[in-house]
Amino acid sequence: MRQPGRHFLQIPGPSSVPDRILKAIGQQTIDHRGPDFADVGKAALDGMKTIFKTNQHVFIFPSSGTGAWEAALVNTLSPGDKVLMFETGHFASMWSSMARKIGFTPEVIEGDWRGGAEPDRIEARLRQDTHHEIKAVCVVHNETSTGSVSPIEEIRKAIDAAGHPALLMVDSISGLASIDFRFDEWGVDVCISGSQKGLMLPPGLSFNAVSEKALERAKSVTMPRSYWDWHDMVGPNSNGYFPYTPSTNLLYGLNEAIEMLHEEGLDQVFARHARHGASTRAAVRAWGLEVLCARQGDESGVLTAVLVPTDYSADNFRATTLKHYNISLGNGLSKVADKVFRIGHLGDFNDLMLMATLSGVEMGLEKAGIPHQSGGAQAALDHLKQSTTCPSDTQNS
Amino acid sequence: MRQPGRHFLQIPGPSSVPDRILKAIGQQTIDHRGPDFADVGKAALDGMKTIFKTNQHVFIFPSSGTGAWEAALVNTLSPGDKVLMFETGHFASMWSSMARKIGFTPEVIEGDWRGGAEPDRIEARLRQDTHHEIKAVCVVHNETSTGSVSPIEEIRKAIDAAGHPALLMVDSISGLASIDFRFDEWGVDVCISGSQKGLMLPPGLSFNAVSEKALERAKSVTMPRSYWDWHDMVGPNSNGYFPYTPSTNLLYGLNEAIEMLHEEGLDQVFARHARHGASTRAAVRAWGLEVLCARQGDESGVLTAVLVPTDYSADNFRATTLKHYNISLGNGLSKVADKVFRIGHLGDFNDLMLMATLSGVEMGLEKAGIPHQSGGAQAALDHLKQSTTCPSDTQNS
Amino acid sequence: MRQPGRHFLQIPGPSSVPDRILKAIGQQTIDHRGPDFADVGKAALDGMKTIFKTNQHVFIFPSSGTGAWEAALVNTLSPGDKVLMFETGHFASMWSSMARKIGFTPEVIEGDWRGGAEPDRIEARLRQDTHHEIKAVCVVHNETSTGSVSPIEEIRKAIDAAGHPALLMVDSISGLASIDFRFDEWGVDVCISGSQKGLMLPPGLSFNAVSEKALERAKSVTMPRSYWDWHDMVGPNSNGYFPYTPSTNLLYGLNEAIEMLHEEGLDQVFARHARHGASTRAAVRAWGLEVLCARQGDESGVLTAVLVPTDYSADNFRATTLKHYNISLGNGLSKVADKVFRIGHLGDFNDLMLMATLSGVEMGLEKAGIPHQSGGAQAALDHLKQSTTCPSDTQNS
Amino acid sequence: MRQPGRHFLQIPGPSSVPDRILKAIGQQTIDHRGPDFADVGKAALDGMKTIFKTNQHVFIFPSSGTGAWEAALVNTLSPGDKVLMFETGHFASMWSSMARKIGFTPEVIEGDWRGGAEPDRIEARLRQDTHHEIKAVCVVHNETSTGSVSPIEEIRKAIDAAGHPALLMVDSISGLASIDFRFDEWGVDVCISGSQKGLMLPPGLSFNAVSEKALERAKSVTMPRSYWDWHDMVGPNSNGYFPYTPSTNLLYGLNEAIEMLHEEGLDQVFARHARHGASTRAAVRAWGLEVLCARQGDESGVLTAVLVPTDYSADNFRATTLKHYNISLGNGLSKVADKVFRIGHLGDFNDLMLMATLSGVEMGLEKAGIPHQSGGAQAALDHLKQSTTCPSDTQNS
Repeated sequence: MRQPGRHFLQIPGPSSVPDRILKAIGQQTIDHRGPDFADVGKAALDGMKTIFKTNQHVFIFPSSGTGAWEAALVNTLSPGDKVLMFETGHFASMWSSMARKIGFTPEVIEGDWRGGAEPDRIEARLRQDTHHEIKAVCVVHNETSTGSVSPIEEIRKAIDAAGHPALLMVDSISGLASIDFRFDEWGVDVCISGSQKGLMLPPGLSFNAVSEKALERAKSVTMPRSYWDWHDMVGPNSNGYFPYTPSTNLLYGLNEAIEMLHEEGLDQVFARHARHGASTRAAVRAWGLEVLCARQGDESGVLTAVLVPTDYSADNFRATTLKHYNISLGNGLSKVADKVFRIGHLGDFNDLMLMATLSGVEMGLEKAGIPHQSGGAQAALDHLKQSTTCPSDTQNS
Repeated sequence: MRQPGRHFLQIPGPSSVPDRILKAIGQQTIDHRGPDFADVGKAALDGMKTIFKTNQHVFIFPSSGTGAWEAALVNTLSPGDKVLMFETGHFASMWSSMARKIGFTPEVIEGDWRGGAEPDRIEARLRQDTHHEIKAVCVVHNETSTGSVSPIEEIRKAIDAAGHPALLMVDSISGLASIDFRFDEWGVDVCISGSQKGLMLPPGLSFNAVSEKALERAKSVTMPRSYWDWHDMVGPNSNGYFPYTPSTNLLYGLNEAIEMLHEEGLDQVFARHARHGASTRAAVRAWGLEVLCARQGDESGVLTAVLVPTDYSADNFRATTLKHYNISLGNGLSKVADKVFRIGHLGDFNDLMLMATLSGVEMGLEKAGIPHQSGGAQAALDHLKQSTTCPSDTQNS
Repeated sequence: MRQPGRHFLQIPGPSSVPDRILKAIGQQTIDHRGPDFADVGKAALDGMKTIFKTNQHVFIFPSSGTGAWEAALVNTLSPGDKVLMFETGHFASMWSSMARKIGFTPEVIEGDWRGGAEPDRIEARLRQDTHHEIKAVCVVHNETSTGSVSPIEEIRKAIDAAGHPALLMVDSISGLASIDFRFDEWGVDVCISGSQKGLMLPPGLSFNAVSEKALERAKSVTMPRSYWDWHDMVGPNSNGYFPYTPSTNLLYGLNEAIEMLHEEGLDQVFARHARHGASTRAAVRAWGLEVLCARQGDESGVLTAVLVPTDYSADNFRATTLKHYNISLGNGLSKVADKVFRIGHLGDFNDLMLMATLSGVEMGLEKAGIPHQSGGAQAALDHLKQSTTCPSDTQNS
Repeated sequence: MRQPGRHFLQIPGPSSVPDRILKAIGQQTIDHRGPDFADVGKAALDGMKTIFKTNQHVFIFPSSGTGAWEAALVNTLSPGDKVLMFETGHFASMWSSMARKIGFTPEVIEGDWRGGAEPDRIEARLRQDTHHEIKAVCVVHNETSTGSVSPIEEIRKAIDAAGHPALLMVDSISGLASIDFRFDEWGVDVCISGSQKGLMLPPGLSFNAVSEKALERAKSVTMPRSYWDWHDMVGPNSNGYFPYTPSTNLLYGLNEAIEMLHEEGLDQVFARHARHGASTRAAVRAWGLEVLCARQGDESGVLTAVLVPTDYSADNFRATTLKHYNISLGNGLSKVADKVFRIGHLGDFNDLMLMATLSGVEMGLEKAGIPHQSGGAQAALDHLKQSTTCPSDTQNS
């Protein structure tokens, strides 16, 4: 049976791809060694610098974000090197598992999955590391499994306060282009990102933003690497080309995405996500449910993870909403599996799409028999009414 | 400034075109005289019979719906012929103006624009017409300017009760494929429709469903015609071809649309529209506003026209919602200009899109300063929760 | 069985639609009464003036070209009015049949279908018409059934030389945007065109370019009309809108087409078509076959009609090339049915596509057993080599 | 300046992407963890087995083909392991460079770049390797830099004849789905491929077909790996899912491509490529030029590399054809740089596109002043005429 109308893809990524980007991707593939390609490649490489807010280096891989995690590690570490990682949730755990699997020595600061990484705990651990065995500090900017944000700028300050030379490596796969991120200003050394979140593309491209310091480090570390090797990229990239066949059609889409983000304005994009996060939390409170992120100020503008009451199944709820209301919500992962559902409010999104989403959640709560108070959608609507949407209003306020 | 997210095109047509149809339309044009075209043409002509629910004739014009109005008249009438038309609203008026302009003699039964055509008034007039000067009765099935539905089956019965030989000609431009219509069963002689409403296509195709009786009549009437001539169509159509170049790419889309309608099931489509109309009226009541259609049972599942309080401008309200919430609403036409706005809930539409729409209306009422009660969106949501959506539920209930 | 590779649609229209235009058409439909539409409408109306080369009036109909023929007649003539038409081929005949069918009195100057309209014969006839009963002279600019071009400028001079007030009405459905046409400079009163030829769109839009004189004439003529009425268009068009729902998505495509034509440059477009026509004739000569257009200087850059030897079937040949070589060629119409095939070399076309086309024809001649000399493709290739392609070359030569 | 008409992308990959595949790729991204995705994933994984002709394993990576080279090596080898590689051309060289870079010990059998890998030389070397230090034999099936094909089945026999346990790893990035390949029947252990050649997709997906033996070997080798790890794939793949975010939209395209290949029939696809290779060589001979592949029987159906006369620049010739004739040809790589140009005749291609291509080459030779005989295009055309195209003919002959 056909479900009428648009599907609402409200998982925390991939986000719904706007028509402009789908059309860009659907253009005919060109010769990636030919003269016309240079413009495509340069626009992508230069454009991504404006998104990361860096004047240093950006590398683009034809891969999922997982590949860019691996790239960050293998370019900056030698086999056995120790890295300090903060367990903000499932994706932070996965990254440390990968580090261990490929031969590094991750040390994990455990977290409760209800907030971002904590700068003071990082600083304390670094101060103990008097021999500077820790080569990098790895944190997740926006933890997609929990909806919590880590204070990257404060973590940089914590590292500096500890007088420690470790690189700062940040996974902003789901944060970039949705919430504020400033590579150069915040002193990040490597930032990992992917195409299918704030960049509004299908999955298939990943990114490393890289500081001069990290690029220099890459010259001396001994981890074997080829596909992910930054230094093989530098030469061809300088003319808009790549050392091996790039994902041409996704690059078409990326250039369209960068243009769209700048048309709206990055600050406007960030404000929109923050406001939608706040409206969503207003709905959750009105339903009488609990937001997973419990540390005030760490709540994400990208997604909101919601705890269902004990003894109820979040996955059953999600299956019900998908079947009855044509909306996909994100599932709980590993230790919060079946206990939370995640509402993605990222990407090319607006007030009316948020109201559709929260209405779908409220209808699904009712249909699935999850104990809750009616009125969450209206609470979000009231929050939206009281906050600003129109750019000209913003300028005046 | 780019407005993020999807635009909500909630005018009562054109309705938002689903991606499947846009992709179909975007296929390469083929030779409309070549062997492959026959399949395209036949699928369209036969498929439209299943939508009109007729075993008689369907003709497809490369034109807007206005053209199909003209086609209906010029094929069935001789210059000066009298037609009885019921003024349900702006579009009924326009159709009678056209009839007069091209040389016929429309007699208009005046209406208050707050309900459908009234069978008893039609019957009464026909009984007076003892010399059968009236050659056709023309009514609008779904009056797009008011959101009122005319009872076609009862009008047929009224004509028969009067023992009058007039043809029954029905404009179902905005009704077809959204609300129940049965050409053969209801005894309609000519039905006019267009592509951009329930058929979910862009504008550019129009239709005449034609009874044997009307086709026979066309042989004897003397109105000059060429582009619109049904009898020129009959021969080529029998093999899937057309007498002049058809709108090939829109026909691709039409075939996709017909397939989508049958995938969902026409009864399911009609039930969906009816339920969305009822939910919308629940919202309007909760806002403390008035629905233009005042005759119970005539309310449309296609659109709802809403009166704004005296001294307020509906057009200003619409401009506000467009600017701030990225949603297009329909304007009031001629005698209700600036007094009503129209909410389209037709086409490829679902519960979440309706909630987005009504949330946009509620936010717009607030932003534009239209006196109203908050809570309409929630009232619609509650109505949706209490009524059935899932096809399997339907079958069980 | 799937035929691999691209289909070559080498009929004389519809021409193959470029991807840019298909993508434009595939964009979401917008509110044709909303503020954003005005830009679309104005770009189309103003843009078409640059294509017709007129500062007077252009009207756009959602219809096939046939509709625009009817529009030209019904806006400028009263019932029974006499028009002088020149029978250059099948389409000229069809137009005169339409004129007769809707109540005018066409007088046809017979032709042999092997050249364009003859100014001297038109002048001679007009000189006899001392009472100025002839209200319009109707000629086909590029006769799509024969591949012959009529000398429009000379026909204007002939009318003037005869001192006759008849309007000059020109069908340039298949000529516009492929071969030189100058509405104002040549003194044309009405020009009819369509979307699916030089404009590279799918079928579904048609055009009337209209002189002040013709528009003034429209005020006094008594032919009933509504859909085609120019005067209903003038008001809304002045702001970029239309009196009834326009074919929004085809207008998107039209604006893209106009932009593409100007990117290449109209003179460049005309030179390209002329050169391809000449190369095609070189191939035909090398095959030992005969071009239908026998009057030197009247050969078309749009298409070339080729006579097959007596006792051979052009239609069988075309079916063979379609089945074996994935190329559609145009058929012979009415009195040259099965005697000629037509090679379209119009629209978004280049040297390599022409060589593909002529190679397909040569292979088809062989496969279908049509007596011919091998080597036509090579003759065309040699012709192409010796003539100029590159714009910078053109400027230097 | 806009170049009119279609661009001919006649490099040996990426090949021109058919509209059906571009449309498939342009569909909305879905939840790669949701229930609907399983069908997409399974269709891709199962479908690729039919293309590789294997009942063993296929893994799909979001990466370029280079990544699949790395995947093949890191899953089957331990650091320092020796591999025997045959230098058929540039890509074989690149693969051995990669092997060395990431810590293996490639031993290269040198070749003259004018034919495929030689089974007897491989057998001779393996016989010397009495301690079985060589862990794998790596050969390129279709060497994209030279247009030569290696006899994979004979190489398998050579390995077996030597009684050597080395794995047989084959790069068929540019061969798969264009020329015959039979993973199971030929006893291949790992086959590497990519999306942008015979599969007619944009670049961005790569593949490993893997034998049971190779998958077993992967359990014991010690090379660190994560992104490329086959064993992480096995579990999720069994249900149609992937261990990390797949390239959803390219998978849509892949499924369309697999369907298209089976619609035509793989044998038909291979015959088509072989015939086009032969026609191309007929053209090259007629021009009086030399095909790079000098070993009879090794000539590729995918591409033809052509030597330009000494003292002439192949790259200048290619720039000329691109500028004047809107066709991209492949360049010579490393030791044949500027000495050869490469004509790609792979992917979704047909007789008329080949004639367009060869006509473009002939015009370019003339324009660039490369000494040659005219008549190559005609020679190819004659070859095409004399050989079979139509599937029904094939069946009858």
